[in-house]
Amino acid sequence: MNKVFSVIGLLAIFFLLAGRGIPTRDRQEVRTVRNINKDWLYVEDRGFDLKNLPQEGSWEKIDLPHSWNQWDATDYLPGYRRDASWYKKQLTIPRQSGVRHLLYFEGANISTRLYVNGQYAGEHIGGYVGFEIDITPFVKKGKSNELIVRVDNSYDPDIIPSQKSDFFIYGGITRDVWLKTVPQTYIERAHISTPTVSKASATTQVKLWLANPEQKSFEGNLRYELFGADSLRPILSAEQAIQLKGSGLDTQIELPQLERPTLWSPDHPFLYRLRIRLETNGRVVDESVQRFGYRWFHFEKNGPFFLNGERVKIRGTHRHEEHAGYGAAMPNRLHRQDIEMIKEMGANFLRLGHYPQDPEVYKACDELGIIVWDELPWCRGGRGGEAWEKNTTRLLREQITQNYNHPSILFWSLGNEIYWLPDMEGGDETGYLNEMVSRLNEIAHELDPYRMTSIRKYYEGAHLVDVFSPSIWSGWYAGVYKNYQATLEKQRPLYERFLHMEYGGSSHVGRHTEVPIDGDGLVEEDEWAEEINQVNVKNIAQSGDWTENYIVDLFDWHLMVSEGTDWFAGNAQWAFKDFGTPLRPENPIPFVNQKGLVDRSGKPKDAYYVFKSYWAKEPFVYIESHSWTERNGPRGKSKELSVYSNCSSVELFHNGKSLGQKERQIGQFPAAGLHWDVQFTEGKNELLARGYVDGQPVSADTLEVRYSFEKHGVAENFRLSSRPLSNGRYLIEAIAVDAQGRRVLDYEGRVYFSEDGAGEFLINYGTPSRSQVVEMANGRAAIEWQPGPGRTTFEARNQNFKGAYLVLER
Amino acid sequence: MNKVFSVIGLLAIFFLLAGRGIPTRDRQEVRTVRNINKDWLYVEDRGFDLKNLPQEGSWEKIDLPHSWNQWDATDYLPGYRRDASWYKKQLTIPRQSGVRHLLYFEGANISTRLYVNGQYAGEHIGGYVGFEIDITPFVKKGKSNELIVRVDNSYDPDIIPSQKSDFFIYGGITRDVWLKTVPQTYIERAHISTPTVSKASATTQVKLWLANPEQKSFEGNLRYELFGADSLRPILSAEQAIQLKGSGLDTQIELPQLERPTLWSPDHPFLYRLRIRLETNGRVVDESVQRFGYRWFHFEKNGPFFLNGERVKIRGTHRHEEHAGYGAAMPNRLHRQDIEMIKEMGANFLRLGHYPQDPEVYKACDELGIIVWDELPWCRGGRGGEAWEKNTTRLLREQITQNYNHPSILFWSLGNEIYWLPDMEGGDETGYLNEMVSRLNEIAHELDPYRMTSIRKYYEGAHLVDVFSPSIWSGWYAGVYKNYQATLEKQRPLYERFLHMEYGGSSHVGRHTEVPIDGDGLVEEDEWAEEINQVNVKNIAQSGDWTENYIVDLFDWHLMVSEGTDWFAGNAQWAFKDFGTPLRPENPIPFVNQKGLVDRSGKPKDAYYVFKSYWAKEPFVYIESHSWTERNGPRGKSKELSVYSNCSSVELFHNGKSLGQKERQIGQFPAAGLHWDVQFTEGKNELLARGYVDGQPVSADTLEVRYSFEKHGVAENFRLSSRPLSNGRYLIEAIAVDAQGRRVLDYEGRVYFSEDGAGEFLINYGTPSRSQVVEMANGRAAIEWQPGPGRTTFEARNQNFKGAYLVLER
Repeated sequence: MNKVFSVIGLLAIFFLLAGRGIPTRDRQEVRTVRNINKDWLYVEDRGFDLKNLPQEGSWEKIDLPHSWNQWDATDYLPGYRRDASWYKKQLTIPRQSGVRHLLYFEGANISTRLYVNGQYAGEHIGGYVGFEIDITPFVKKGKSNELIVRVDNSYDPDIIPSQKSDFFIYGGITRDVWLKTVPQTYIERAHISTPTVSKASATTQVKLWLANPEQKSFEGNLRYELFGADSLRPILSAEQAIQLKGSGLDTQIELPQLERPTLWSPDHPFLYRLRIRLETNGRVVDESVQRFGYRWFHFEKNGPFFLNGERVKIRGTHRHEEHAGYGAAMPNRLHRQDIEMIKEMGANFLRLGHYPQDPEVYKACDELGIIVWDELPWCRGGRGGEAWEKNTTRLLREQITQNYNHPSILFWSLGNEIYWLPDMEGGDETGYLNEMVSRLNEIAHELDPYRMTSIRKYYEGAHLVDVFSPSIWSGWYAGVYKNYQATLEKQRPLYERFLHMEYGGSSHVGRHTEVPIDGDGLVEEDEWAEEINQVNVKNIAQSGDWTENYIVDLFDWHLMVSEGTDWFAGNAQWAFKDFGTPLRPENPIPFVNQKGLVDRSGKPKDAYYVFKSYWAKEPFVYIESHSWTERNGPRGKSKELSVYSNCSSVELFHNGKSLGQKERQIGQFPAAGLHWDVQFTEGKNELLARGYVDGQPVSADTLEVRYSFEKHGVAENFRLSSRPLSNGRYLIEAIAVDAQGRRVLDYEGRVYFSEDGAGEFLINYGTPSRSQVVEMANGRAAIEWQPGPGRTTFEARNQNFKGAYLVLER
Repeated sequence: MNKVFSVIGLLAIFFLLAGRGIPTRDRQEVRTVRNINKDWLYVEDRGFDLKNLPQEGSWEKIDLPHSWNQWDATDYLPGYRRDASWYKKQLTIPRQSGVRHLLYFEGANISTRLYVNGQYAGEHIGGYVGFEIDITPFVKKGKSNELIVRVDNSYDPDIIPSQKSDFFIYGGITRDVWLKTVPQTYIERAHISTPTVSKASATTQVKLWLANPEQKSFEGNLRYELFGADSLRPILSAEQAIQLKGSGLDTQIELPQLERPTLWSPDHPFLYRLRIRLETNGRVVDESVQRFGYRWFHFEKNGPFFLNGERVKIRGTHRHEEHAGYGAAMPNRLHRQDIEMIKEMGANFLRLGHYPQDPEVYKACDELGIIVWDELPWCRGGRGGEAWEKNTTRLLREQITQNYNHPSILFWSLGNEIYWLPDMEGGDETGYLNEMVSRLNEIAHELDPYRMTSIRKYYEGAHLVDVFSPSIWSGWYAGVYKNYQATLEKQRPLYERFLHMEYGGSSHVGRHTEVPIDGDGLVEEDEWAEEINQVNVKNIAQSGDWTENYIVDLFDWHLMVSEGTDWFAGNAQWAFKDFGTPLRPENPIPFVNQKGLVDRSGKPKDAYYVFKSYWAKEPFVYIESHSWTERNGPRGKSKELSVYSNCSSVELFHNGKSLGQKERQIGQFPAAGLHWDVQFTEGKNELLARGYVDGQPVSADTLEVRYSFEKHGVAENFRLSSRPLSNGRYLIEAIAVDAQGRRVLDYEGRVYFSEDGAGEFLINYGTPSRSQVVEMANGRAAIEWQPGPGRTTFEARNQNFKGAYLVLER
């Protein structure tokens, strides 16, 4: 047998990264993990089968990750492609004997079939989890091999999530693909558990799966060595003699007790590495390096959450896996960017709602210190039939199996709103559903006794899982945000372990109102009757106008309550980033769920800074609002202006004059007391906010506001203009104007942009300035244009305005 | 000189049709008119010029007429292509000497440039009118010649109509193209005027333009012979000696007086034909046959309209030139079909709003007896600058010149809403506008002293033209329909010659309400609170829900008033057929103006039968409504049911039992008294209406209504189903249902259809069942599907419903 080195099964991609720094010897090329994202061919299915695939010329050259719904999800047309497509790649397999070749897909949506050199090699049903197919029997060594992958995201009620979920089910090979070359006998997977952890000591249990598909007889031993974060010398080690005859071996070992472990926590996300070596006759045959962490956690009954014995307030948000211009097929740098922004905001918790995500996400959460609620994609649609059950239970097993070692994951969620809108008759019957929830709960605990199970918004099954989240959307889908505390108190006795998942609401970037709905659901005495009617709204989601300042108030209040409520374990805002959804064709940005703290391209909205002010450590100051620079109001009336900051005090200057320094005091509202009455002057107003810590100025923000004492009239048309952007593009801007040409600051109608001639609009991104149809925010909407040579005519219209034109010659 | 035969200039296409039956002699091939619609190539412009046009393979094979906006106008995306395209054709020119070759375009939108064998041959600016280009200098005889035509419908405020008009400005060669081969000296155009007409006698004046581009000297005579409709022998004749030296000759002749002319009228559209022959040395050199008619007309001051000395009530409608699936590029059979349907409805008047139309339209109006208001496309946008003026005055001259001989045309309209939404600063200033209106009025009268000029909705210039129409939209854009009479009376003294153009409103096929808004703008005491609020509406266009039964009432009332108001000259409903418009993205059928009496494919709505009941002669009966077969209401409450019919009496049977026979009495409302209180029974109700004339049954209609005493709940989702259609397609039908699965009859939300797999939806037609996005009518919407092999998934969603699915396997 050759000398081989190995990494374990599904977490192979950590090999180079995680293994760096650990001494290894005699590395050879026999065990390799090679990314094969580049140079694929792609074609949409037209009822093809393997035998009648189209000629080469009909295929498009692409790289992975890839989704055919990259653009059509958030285009303005209804629907998005739910169908099959074919991928093809020529893959050279080295002339090397005694090795096996595995194709590892990090995920492909939603069903996948693999053919190698014209032969069926394997398949996987279900998206959002990785899978591995052994292609050894089908490859020709030393030659080019043809891989053909058929991926299908057709409507299929037998596969979770339900089609009625509020997100797109992107089709494609949406994550990385790897070729793994392993020895004939290899470490398939290792699960590291930490059954008892305390500050004083920790126990470590390793379950190991060895694969031996050729059923070679093998005698040797396993060597386990534990390393600290950057340490090159093992802290402790163990050895285990093994003997293989059949197709594999499952084994288990308890490592020596670790004294005074460095614990993993959001503030100090310390990672250990366990190196496992398969040896025979003193030679290393295979090697796996696993990262993991030591931590323990519990809830006080009907009370707070503890990590490593210390109170930790859950400060969370949610993440969908998609991004403007990419759909779900995001490059790793954007996965990482999301998690870094979430960390920077100060969050310590992330619910991966509503499905398992890219390996890069768990890696980032492990490294940055974000507690993860990992969720089975049983989202809406009720319980299905036999095929559905088989898929659902298998997918839960796969999810737990492949994500097992991540210290960041504390919760296995079994689903979300599972009873709602059943896809099959009777699929929402409580007894029938509970039987399924119990079964899934048992599977989760059997596979992983050391984590908690959870579920959201399925009251009838709340008692079946460890942790429960009811649905509370104070001030959005029901009630007013000032009821949040009372609602929490009411829920508290109902659930032993109670986390509140999902609160928030939608906001349209740049939309503000001088008279926001307050926490009692009322608007101020109408100073100048506004165009929309917000008085006495019952359900702000329906009847509100999705201003940024309402949502700032809503979050500010929620954060004040959750930070100030001692017994409360914590909550998670829904959702970090705007995301596409087929369910909302008539949103201000059509087909975009606009509940994000950042827009679909990751650009912060005002609300992001509210969270930062409560949670982040790096001092900052943000004057509300940089997207609200045109305002008006009657002469002599002052306006309350908030500054969001985590500094201990802030001083606000208006046109160079100090309006006073204020202490930040959590429990005050709004902005923890950092608000001033400003008497805006006509025309340009210069605002400066300076933040202090320990009496020293540490941060500042400036804002220029143009203010008018004149009330605009009713909108009569749009005015179009253009200005160059630093990225070489142009911004085509439409302003709603009244008969006197004044901007109508409360105009919120849709704008339909169109363009003829050279260049092209940036559309279908689902962002405020890259959508062809978008609602105005404070009488303004804009779209980016990639210029081309020649003459271009731009037009902005809507149902009420007959059109404004702009002609550019270049 | 060869013996040649000719037809005159722009009306060449009448040659074969109109000339049939008139004895001619010595016809030869030297003068031919050949349609060249077939076998063109087409490519969209990408900044090309003549020298760098793309390779043959990039061009698409098409036939004319053609518009590149055939589909994109009424697709769901904003905007439609406003740009240039190129057309190409190989044209064999016969090896024949002594002839000239003219290309005649019936119309191309909006600017056209012609190249022949790589040489610039001519151009035309402006759509909707025909033009002729002499290609003789550029052709190679006996060979194939390359025609290249560049057509451009880019935004251009220098060319009428304004972009702010409520219709699409379709780009393309949207009408027929002809190759005319004429002798070197030929009859270019003949204008036949009838300066004095009475029942006793008529005078006939002929203005003739002879073309002689080669400036050959020519001596001969013109022979004029008048023929009756089918007569083969001339009724009268005249002769005129002529002598040509220069490039042409304008001449004029008064024909002998015609005794007891057969007059042209809507009831008896008698056409004469004038044959004009150019002769020399006893040989016929060229020949033109013109159809025309004798009629005279006038208004009593502030009173009725008279044709041929008799009171004729103007019973009109309007027509846009476009059709579902074609845009403006309609085949002649559809042009004819529109006019035939208008005639069948009983109309005697048609306003070609807002531009001159296809030659086939005038031909049909001449033949079927429809009085035409022919309109210059000065629609909205105000007055432009110098270039605009040059184009506008020229287009008026061209329009009058080419349509001169049509007896159907009585009015040259100078425009519509010309002051509104000026495209240029100051373009709506009254003095500036009036100066332009006066100038156009003079041009029209100078070119044609025998017709009247007119304008609509430009009050400041009402006195400048002969006939004026104010804007009256009783019960739609303003007020209530019961005010119509009072409004007319108020307008009467203001305008000496007053025709009322444009009334009506929008209706969405299949939408009905049990509690329609009445003529006072009120709804009945709400029996079961309806979903929408129609109480005390000020502007029904905005706040109404566009039911068919409201619009039926509105039209019924208007017709009762106009038929019953003795002094009133008459009016014209806006518009006969639904049509596409860029201005209305949020209509029940997006981008469709739904004011038609028939849908965009020509299928009658209820309103069509209302007009027929007042105007048509052929007996018919129509029970309101065949698109309202699912109804509900409280037990014991009867419903008023109307029957629209032109029979003298109608008997209604409900479930086999007569509810009595009623006399039709104009002046009663609704339905001229033909309405019954029906006590619907639960379930199936069979209705039969039988019409009588002179006591004899002459026509009948049946209708089955399913009625429920149960009130449905709130809509919760859609239910999808499919059924085969006789055309081989399937109808995919979405029904809004409540929690109990009952159809929600007042649900009016939008439906977004999508489809994946085999086959395809029929979309972008702008009709109720061929639009991808459409509002529900009485809780129902449907879309046609062209099946393909395999599995197809259909989906219906909207902002509130998370989706209903239907899977078909074929």
